[in-house]
This record gives sequence, structure tokens and C-alpha cells, in this order.
Amino acid sequence: MSSIGTKSDVVSSRIRFNNDYSEGAHPRILALLQETNMVQSPGYGEDDYCDAARKLIKKTFACPLSDVHFVVGGTQANLTVIDAALRSHQSVLSADTGHINVHETGAIEACGHKVETLPHVDGKITAEAIASHVSAHFADEAFEHMTQPKMVYLSQPTEFGTLYTKEELTAIKKVCEKHALFLFIDGARLGYGLSSSENDITPESLAPLCDVFTIGGTKVGALFGEGVVISHPDLKKDFRYLIKQKGGMLAKGRLLGLQFVALFEDGLYFRLGEHADVLAYKLRDALIEKGFTPYINSPTNQQFFKLDKTVCDEISKAFVFSPIETVDDTTQIVRFCTSWATTQESVDAFVTFIKTL
Amino acid sequence: MSSIGTKSDVVSSRIRFNNDYSEGAHPRILALLQETNMVQSPGYGEDDYCDAARKLIKKTFACPLSDVHFVVGGTQANLTVIDAALRSHQSVLSADTGHINVHETGAIEACGHKVETLPHVDGKITAEAIASHVSAHFADEAFEHMTQPKMVYLSQPTEFGTLYTKEELTAIKKVCEKHALFLFIDGARLGYGLSSSENDITPESLAPLCDVFTIGGTKVGALFGEGVVISHPDLKKDFRYLIKQKGGMLAKGRLLGLQFVALFEDGLYFRLGEHADVLAYKLRDALIEKGFTPYINSPTNQQFFKLDKTVCDEISKAFVFSPIETVDDTTQIVRFCTSWATTQESVDAFVTFIKTL
Amino acid sequence: MSSIGTKSDVVSSRIRFNNDYSEGAHPRILALLQETNMVQSPGYGEDDYCDAARKLIKKTFACPLSDVHFVVGGTQANLTVIDAALRSHQSVLSADTGHINVHETGAIEACGHKVETLPHVDGKITAEAIASHVSAHFADEAFEHMTQPKMVYLSQPTEFGTLYTKEELTAIKKVCEKHALFLFIDGARLGYGLSSSENDITPESLAPLCDVFTIGGTKVGALFGEGVVISHPDLKKDFRYLIKQKGGMLAKGRLLGLQFVALFEDGLYFRLGEHADVLAYKLRDALIEKGFTPYINSPTNQQFFKLDKTVCDEISKAFVFSPIETVDDTTQIVRFCTSWATTQESVDAFVTFIKTL
Amino acid sequence: MSSIGTKSDVVSSRIRFNNDYSEGAHPRILALLQETNMVQSPGYGEDDYCDAARKLIKKTFACPLSDVHFVVGGTQANLTVIDAALRSHQSVLSADTGHINVHETGAIEACGHKVETLPHVDGKITAEAIASHVSAHFADEAFEHMTQPKMVYLSQPTEFGTLYTKEELTAIKKVCEKHALFLFIDGARLGYGLSSSENDITPESLAPLCDVFTIGGTKVGALFGEGVVISHPDLKKDFRYLIKQKGGMLAKGRLLGLQFVALFEDGLYFRLGEHADVLAYKLRDALIEKGFTPYINSPTNQQFFKLDKTVCDEISKAFVFSPIETVDDTTQIVRFCTSWATTQESVDAFVTFIKTL
Repeated sequence: MSSIGTKSDVVSSRIRFNNDYSEGAHPRILALLQETNMVQSPGYGEDDYCDAARKLIKKTFACPLSDVHFVVGGTQANLTVIDAALRSHQSVLSADTGHINVHETGAIEACGHKVETLPHVDGKITAEAIASHVSAHFADEAFEHMTQPKMVYLSQPTEFGTLYTKEELTAIKKVCEKHALFLFIDGARLGYGLSSSENDITPESLAPLCDVFTIGGTKVGALFGEGVVISHPDLKKDFRYLIKQKGGMLAKGRLLGLQFVALFEDGLYFRLGEHADVLAYKLRDALIEKGFTPYINSPTNQQFFKLDKTVCDEISKAFVFSPIETVDDTTQIVRFCTSWATTQESVDAFVTFIKTL
Repeated sequence: MSSIGTKSDVVSSRIRFNNDYSEGAHPRILALLQETNMVQSPGYGEDDYCDAARKLIKKTFACPLSDVHFVVGGTQANLTVIDAALRSHQSVLSADTGHINVHETGAIEACGHKVETLPHVDGKITAEAIASHVSAHFADEAFEHMTQPKMVYLSQPTEFGTLYTKEELTAIKKVCEKHALFLFIDGARLGYGLSSSENDITPESLAPLCDVFTIGGTKVGALFGEGVVISHPDLKKDFRYLIKQKGGMLAKGRLLGLQFVALFEDGLYFRLGEHADVLAYKLRDALIEKGFTPYINSPTNQQFFKLDKTVCDEISKAFVFSPIETVDDTTQIVRFCTSWATTQESVDAFVTFIKTL
Repeated sequence: MSSIGTKSDVVSSRIRFNNDYSEGAHPRILALLQETNMVQSPGYGEDDYCDAARKLIKKTFACPLSDVHFVVGGTQANLTVIDAALRSHQSVLSADTGHINVHETGAIEACGHKVETLPHVDGKITAEAIASHVSAHFADEAFEHMTQPKMVYLSQPTEFGTLYTKEELTAIKKVCEKHALFLFIDGARLGYGLSSSENDITPESLAPLCDVFTIGGTKVGALFGEGVVISHPDLKKDFRYLIKQKGGMLAKGRLLGLQFVALFEDGLYFRLGEHADVLAYKLRDALIEKGFTPYINSPTNQQFFKLDKTVCDEISKAFVFSPIETVDDTTQIVRFCTSWATTQESVDAFVTFIKTL
Repeated sequence: MSSIGTKSDVVSSRIRFNNDYSEGAHPRILALLQETNMVQSPGYGEDDYCDAARKLIKKTFACPLSDVHFVVGGTQANLTVIDAALRSHQSVLSADTGHINVHETGAIEACGHKVETLPHVDGKITAEAIASHVSAHFADEAFEHMTQPKMVYLSQPTEFGTLYTKEELTAIKKVCEKHALFLFIDGARLGYGLSSSENDITPESLAPLCDVFTIGGTKVGALFGEGVVISHPDLKKDFRYLIKQKGGMLAKGRLLGLQFVALFEDGLYFRLGEHADVLAYKLRDALIEKGFTPYINSPTNQQFFKLDKTVCDEISKAFVFSPIETVDDTTQIVRFCTSWATTQESVDAFVTFIKTL
């Protein structure tokens, strides 16, 4: 590959902790791609690999009656699920910090739906806030002049890496059932959540806690791809039409199927999640030991700290990480992110570096 | 890979001529994926591989001033380009057989835009029909009660495998310029068109003949992915926002970039196109020699024949192909399709088989 | 009113047969507006007048279980009903000449829905064509790549003034039930249809023949306003949210209610319809007697003729009428339209004039 | 009118201060309707009355180069203007309490556009908050993952009856110009604002302070209807197509034109505004004298108070007013609203009643 080289740009000569999608895919996925490359198969997700992946996911998550689909990415998954759920006058409730509200360029609105926001607490929303919003809606005499809440969206882990406990999710599910709201769990980083030392939700218990959830591949070892697991019958109907319409249906759908086969055939997905979480804790602990304060307590692969800008400048000489918010002239909130691909060596280098500050 | 095997379903034990996306990708693409897998790079198409691919495409198509983007698939490419071009009251003109009108589950309408159809001639539309439609619109006293034509969509090759000549495209471009219409060429199978023995449009002459065109990767050797080449300044503005919103922006955008590097680094894209076309001609000639009549004269990788259903049944014992339209109780229009991955052996087997009928 | 005068522009010094909305409203409506002007009432259609109008309509059309709503205009009615009926991937079937396909500036598409067209026969579609389209959809192996038919739209009378017979509508309803399609009858000119001498559908039999129909006020004596009569439970749910969202809910909803009270309190709506139809027949007969050929046989208030352009020029010296289509350099299809407001004198003048040609 | 009577429901036997659209229209409007009723005129806003109204508005607001359109209602006006302004990835900034964000059932989102909210201060947004939001957008390295701010929406008066000062609006306009944002002023109650004793913005100075504004008719003496005054050339283009598409174009457009002629021919609009404001001050002063506290200081026809629920119950025996928000078990925020139709007697009765509490 003469023209471009296999080393990336100057930036990447530093170690990247800025996100969890800097590398390609787990080697096993590439191997599987290679191995099956010239097999002829039907298109659009109706091949044997997708079938096998569907079976593995249903088994792993103990949801034999759910429908499982695969789409190319997270925004695609979110907009397709939400468009499948809502009529034109209905809205989806989300934390104000929710991915669909902040970082998808109005994808939900472009499908015609309003995102109604609830104030987040550590990135999470509460059963009480949902109940209160819905009750207020129907109590208002002008309720038909406002969008009708019909779905609750949350992500596990959240944008801040935090986790809903089983008790919290159970309470939210109960409120949703009471008010006939669909509950949608965005699992773009689900692997990092399920493998967290603080997580108390088993894979087997997830499906009954919601109506639909996604399993993020992109950020947990796949080249790309999200699984969509639908339990509620109303959301199952005609879902493939919508995947096609939104441009999320890959002609060579097998590429999605075989990646999820690799991830779920023997628990690789969870091992990759744990790998990243453990390295994130090390990174976090190094910062805490040096006296820095976490902005939020995250038990997953994303770690947020409030740092002096001078410290940021120092660290960024050797490492890439993400600015999240400028607090004031001297202070910055930043994110350090590990992934399935992060090496022990990279984290060791970081720990050593921090000690020298 | 114990659980699924590397052989696909029973159907695929027959040789598949039913489409051009039955296999994975050209080996060179897989090799490149492998080689670069653990390189860390920025996300969302801002990496070195995408940059390199952009340069190669601009050079190949001699359009240094165009913007080049990559999206995951053809529907995605079409809906994003069209949504970028049209205001709410404007429409896109297409052949009634056009892909956006028939086979994208209302993707354009879901973005709020009407597809106005013109009757096709061998899958193509004419400069005259476009001019006539637009003139009629503005001559109507109730013109504001109808959608305003603003873009012309056509595909090269068409859904029937036919090609616009340079003269035809030039005439259409002239009409578009006269009436301030954007001209969009859907090149989902562009490689098979540019490499056709009947094609008279060079890669270097394509960009000036339109305002935006796409370069299909999915059907011409890539795992997935379409290049979007934008020449008109009005379409360039903020295009990345739209890719993101529609869910077409891959976090690991490098996957798109490196595939197009592989396809355009040394002309592989065109060699793959020619390979499929030549095999399609052989397949076609075998049918004609046997006395069957082409439904349409196609100089590219898709071949359409009108066959007796008994003949169809016979052929389908050994080969998979696509039913297109049921003419009556005894007659069927079918499509045979070769691709970059079709082998000489498969076509030889077909030729031999046809002779035995 | 010093500044503008009460006579309209030069054009209107000629007698207008160009449409059925050239004047204000039937005097009784104005009287009612005047009489109730300072009564205070709740807004948004929840007042006594709307309630009374709803009761009158349910009684007139013998549909006590239907929901009745009022919106400001026909495009509003059509887009709201269709948006209430369809999910994102579903389409509405219409004659290619249907109002929603041609004359609403893509209003349906702007709500995200595709209009699938069937070729019209005298402005009408047939049960057979609908059945065939739907069967073809579900028989196609790539059916999820096409919009799913879910609603049939037709207008009674049609754009060409023609009427569906009870037998025709019954057959269409049967097909719709078989395929779970909603049937929507656009009655923008319903009064002219129900009062036609050739009509065989009584008001009492209309509701069971469809799932939703509209009652046009604008063109049949009201200042503006359309009634929407919904029989199918799935279309009833939350309909008021949608009226509000689309901007069709009048703050002073009473204005709609009292107009429909006036029209339906003692059958005025039907008398106005008959008045216009009878005058249209006279106008039509005068043209036929003179040797001109109807373009289509219409039993309602719109009459279409194919005329020499020289004849058009002659007639247009004294009368305003509508060009519909230019056949060739010398021939034009035109429409003459009577209304509730057309006077016997105007038609007599026309008849006399035609004789002199 | 035997069947319904001319007195409204039981509720209305109490005096209604709950909104400003409880009655019909100013008598002059009805007279004009009557006087012109049988004049024949062209449809869809292309008649002499609309022309005259357009001229009067351009003269009154000193904006001869602006385009003036009329639509049926406020939601219609807002959604059409915003849809005309924004591309799919762009958003409109609004106070979180803005009408488009709260009370239009997601009308803007149903057109595909996101409403980005800024926290309100007394119902208003500030130039600083706008500037800060926009700067933050473009400074973010992931700016293409968020909607791009392109329009600022505010209402004058606001939802809380408050007014922007000329200085405040000038500052906002400056920020909008700097960042290429359209500035849209929703004038649903403009008459009550322009006539307020605290207003410092003359009609002549309004157009240059924004790119588009609306003139509410519905709440200020008309039966219905809003004027849309567009100054920015980019918003002018093809606006009538959009009015038609959204269902806001009245076939009998003259009804809109003649109402605005009546309102602006000799300043009636402003006299009606002043009438309501003066009565609102009396109502407010009576409450303040009795010791009640305004929730917000409003210089227009809407007055907001925080009251004990027992007081609310007492007042509601004789008067209808609007609950706005439940503060806690004992306290309620309510709105009292006067209008062009409110009588001195009604307010006197209120003042007397309050003294007796």
C-alpha cells in the first residue's frame, strides 16, 4: 500500500485515549471476514451468518421471542427504533445530555419527532421525573397542544459512563408500563456496562427490563454495527421496511451477522468490555492518586475529570483525550477513554506519566 | 468458526447470478483492512485513509475542486444527496423505474421530498422529457400548487443495465443548467458502466456532466460504501452535517477510505468492472444463441431476458437469478447478473448448461 | 371601505366559471356569524357550535359512532388524515390525477409519506387495480424495499367531476378490507356529488363505504372549512393532536362549527349542491348542442370540454374558465365550473353567448 | 338558528378572562365580509383585498420592500416560516418557554427541524445567550454532530406578556447578523405589544429589527389569520409554495385580505390593542391592591399571578381564567387575559369582586 502508508497522522503518534473507536476490529472478526469472503450468500440480512448471530444474541440475553436486527451504526439504530415507535404527534423522553438530544445532528427531529428532555442526574433520568412529566402532560387542559410522551430513551452506560442499577431500571420500566410508554435502552457501549464491576444487571435480565435495546458493536470490538433487540410486539412489525428506508440495511448484511457471531460465540463481547473497564480503572486511579478529582464517578470505560488547563496541556503532549466542557478560563472537563483495543502498555505509560506531573 | 460453518445455505449450492453483492470483498481490500487494523486514527472520515481516497478519486475523475465524501450504502447516498439539494417544496425528477422511486421504501419521501416521475425509455429519461416537464410546471397558472422541479436523478448504468451516451448526458446537463436543476448521477454500478465496451464517457469527463455523482463500492468489489463526488458549490455546504444526521457517517470512517484507496490506487475498480461486463456478454450471447430474446439490450453486467416459465424452472435448478416481472401465466422477465467476483468457471458452466436446454 | 372598493379586479368583470370558490359564503352563514359574534365560547373546536355541527353531521350521514372534526381547508384535511393513517414506510394509493398527487405541492410527502399512483380511468381508480398493486407488493421478494400500501385515497366527485357508483365503491371497500387498507374519500366537492342526478350513494350509505371521508365546505357554500368524519377506530385515536400540529386547528373553532350547522341544519348543503349541478348541466348542454365534445362525461358541477383555441379565445372574452391541458397547438382542454353561488342569469348569459358562436 | 341557540355553554355564563379568542371578530370585519360577499375574486391570496391589505401593512410598518403573506393561524405561520428558513440539519433557537417549543404539538419537529432551547428570563432570551450558544457550537470539534443554529425565534410580547425593549432587540439583531442567523419575531399578540404603555418599538422600526415577523389577527380582533412580513430575500423565495404545502393557503384568500384591510385601514389594530392593555392594567391593579403578587410584570393584555388555590376557587365562581402551573398543593400560577372584546363592564365587575374577597 504504497500511497498512504500504514501509520496514521502525526496526532496518532501520541497514544489515543480520546475515544473507543480509534482502531479497526478484534482480529477474530477480521479472520472471519477472510474465511468466509468468497461464500455466496443472500443479501440484506437474510443470510446464515445473520441467522446464527440472531440465535446467539437471543441465547445470550435469554430472549428467544425477541426480534434481532442489525444496522450499520448507532445513529441509524436510534433513529430507526424511535421512528418505528412514534406517531407524528408523539415524543421521546431523554436526559438533556442524551445522545439523541445532543450528538446526532437532529436525526430524530429529521424523522419528524420531538425529543422532550428531562434534567439528568449523573447522566441518568429517574422514574419520578418520567412519571411527573407524563402526569403533567395528561393533566394539562391543553394537552393536545403538546407532544404526547410515548417512549423513554436512556443509554446504559450513559454519556458519562454511569450505570443504571437494576432497581432504577425496574422502577423506570414500571412507570413506562403504567403510562404505556415504550422503554428504549441505547447500548452503544453496552459491553462496557455489562462487564463493569459495579453492574448488577445480567445479560439475561436486560430484555425484560425494556421494550427494545441495542448492542453496540462499533465501540466494542467490531468494525461497525449495532444489534437491535426488540421485545415489544408493536415495535417488531415491519421493522425491516424501516431499516431499508433509513439506509441502514447493508446489501452484504452478512458482514453484520458474522461480526456479531464472533462477538457472541464464546463471550468475547464481555471479555472485551471487562478488559477496557479494568484499564479505565487503572487510569482513573492514577489520576486520583495524583490528587485530581473525577468530575463524575464512572464505573465503565469512560472517565471524566475536571482539570486545570495547564495540566491538560501537559498531558496532551503525550496522550490524546477529549475536551468535554470549558468550565472557565482555567478549568476544563475532559474525558479519557479506554477500549477493547487499549493495551496494558499504553495505560502503564499513562500511569507513569501522571506520576511525573 | 464452529457454530456456523463457512458454507452458506442450500440456495447457494447453486451458482448465484441473482445479484452483484453475493460475496464479500476483493482480497486486496481485506488485506488492507488486516494491515492497518491496529493503527489508531481519528474518526468520522477525518483520517489519512479517507484523505488518500479523496485524492485518488479527484485524480481519477479529474475533479480537483470537487468535494468527496463516503457513506455506507446506496440508499444512504441517495437520500443524503437529495435531502441536501431540495427545499421542502421542491422535487426530484426520476425515471418511473428509478431506484429512488421503486426500491428505497420511500426513503426520499421520508425526508419530505416528492419524486416526480418521467416515463422511462430503456430505463433512461430524455432531455426533452425533462425540459417539457419543467416548462409545463412554470407555465401552469397554479404552479405553486405543485412541487417545483429542482433536481434530476438518473443512474449510470440504469436499473436495466443500459447506458446514457455522452451526447444524451450532455443534452440533459444543458437542460438542467437552463432550468437551474441539479443533476445527480447515481453510480451504484458505475464501474460496470465505465468499463462497458459501449461506454463513451471517460472518468475524466463525468464530473463536468453533472453536479454530483456517486461511485458504488458495494456492488463493485468493496464490502460496502459509496463515494459521493460533489461539484456544485450549493450542494457542498454543510454536507457532513447531513451524513451524520442520516446515520451514514461511520465512526471508523477509515473503513470507507481504505476500501476506496484499494479500488482506485491502481485502477482495480475499472478492471473489476470490465471483468464482470465481459462475463455478462458471454452469458448473454449463450442465451441469444439458444434463441432467447433479450428483454432489453444491456451493455453492462445485468442482462434481462423474457423467458418461458418452464425455461426459468429448468435454469433455476442449477443457477439462482432474479425474477423481475411476471408478464403473463407463461412468461417471465428475469435478470442475470455477473459481478467482480463471478468466475470464468461459473459462466462456462452456465454456457454449457444453456446449450443442453 | 374607501380604500379598496367592493368590486374586484378587471378579470372579474367577466362572469367567472373558473372555479367554485370565487364568492364569499351563503348568506345564512354570514347571518349566523353576525348573530353569535359576541358570544364567548371555548376555543379549538370544543364549543357548542362545533358540538351541534358534529351531531347534525352524524345524523345526516347516519354514523352516530363516527368522530367528526373540522379543519380549515382541503389540503389540511388530506395531509392530516393521511399522516394519521400511515407509518413512515407505508404509502397511500391514489389515481395519478388525484389531488394529493398533483395539486398539493407535495403536502403528503412533506409529512414523510409516499403517494403511489394508479392510472386513472375517467379520474377514477378500480378495485382491480388496487388489488393487483397490493398483491404484487407482497408477492415481490424484495417487498421490504418498497413502500407498503396501507391507504387508498379517492375523491368523490373526482378531479374530473365523475362519480364512483355504489357498486364501484363497494368493490373498492371490499378490496381494502381484504388487504387491511384504510379507505379515504376526499369529499372536497361532496355536495355536488351527493346531489347529482346520476349519484346512487345516499348520505346514509357513505360512512360504511369507507373508513374516513371529508365534507367540503369551502367549495359548497362555506367561507372555508372541511368536516372530517372518521369511522375506523385506528384513525380516531389522538386525531386532535395532529390537527393542532399541522396548523389546522382554529383558535376560534366555533367559526367552523357554525358554518356546518348552517349547512346541515336543514339540508342547505344538498340544495346548494343540486343548484350548481343543474346549472352545470345547462351549461354543458349548451356546449353540446353547439357541437362541442365533452372531454369527459361529468354529472357534477365541473364540466370538461376539448375546444379549439380560437373558440377558447372567443368565449374568454366574456367568461372566465380554466385551462386544464394543452393538447396541441390548436386544441385545449378546459373546465367550466358552477357553484352554489352561480346565478341562473350567468348561465343564461353563457347559453345565449354560446349560441352566437 | 333553532337548534343551538346563540348563547354558549354553562361555562360561558361566567365572564371569560381565560384567553383572547373567546369572541368572534370586530364588527367592522363582519361588515366588510357582508359587503363584499358576492363579489367574485381570484383565489389563493391573489385578489384585490389581499393586495390592498399588503399595501396597508407595508405602509404601516414602513417596509415597502418586504413581502407580505397571509395564513390562517399562528401555528401555521410559525411552521411555514421556520420550514422556509432551515435546511434539514439546522435548528431554530427559542426560549424554553417559547410557543414553538411548548404549545404546537411538535409542529416544527414534524417539519424535520430541531428547536434548540435557551433558558428564558421573564419569557425572554438574551443576545448574550444566543451568542454564547452559537459560539459554542462552532468551537466544538464535533460541531457536525449537532444541529447548526440558523434562526432565532422570539415572540413580542412573549408567552408571559413581557416585551423586548428596542435595545434588547437591537442587540439580538446584531448577534444574528454576526452569525448569519435569521431573526423571526412571532407577533401573535403584536397589537397588544405595540400598544403597550411600556413599548418603545414603533411599527416603523420593527421590520429592520428582524428578518421576518408575523402580525397576529386571531387574538387581536380578526376571526382568524396572521400576516407574515418577510424582509430577508432568502426567506422570500418560493414562500407561496410552502404556504400551499402546509395547508395554510385559503382558497378564498380574500377572507384574510379583507380582515387585515379592516384592521389596518385606519389604525383599528392599534386601538384594539390599547383597549385590551388598559383593561388589563385595571385588572392587575385591582389584584395588586388586594395584596396579591404578580408572578411576572407584564405590560400587555396577559397578567400572571401566583395565588392560593382557595383564592382561585373563589374567583372562578364568577370568572374563567387559566391555570398555568401548579406550584405546590396550595399555590397556583394563573393567567388573566383581556382582549379587544373585553368590556369595561366585565373588568369593573372583576374589580368589584376582588375587593370583596
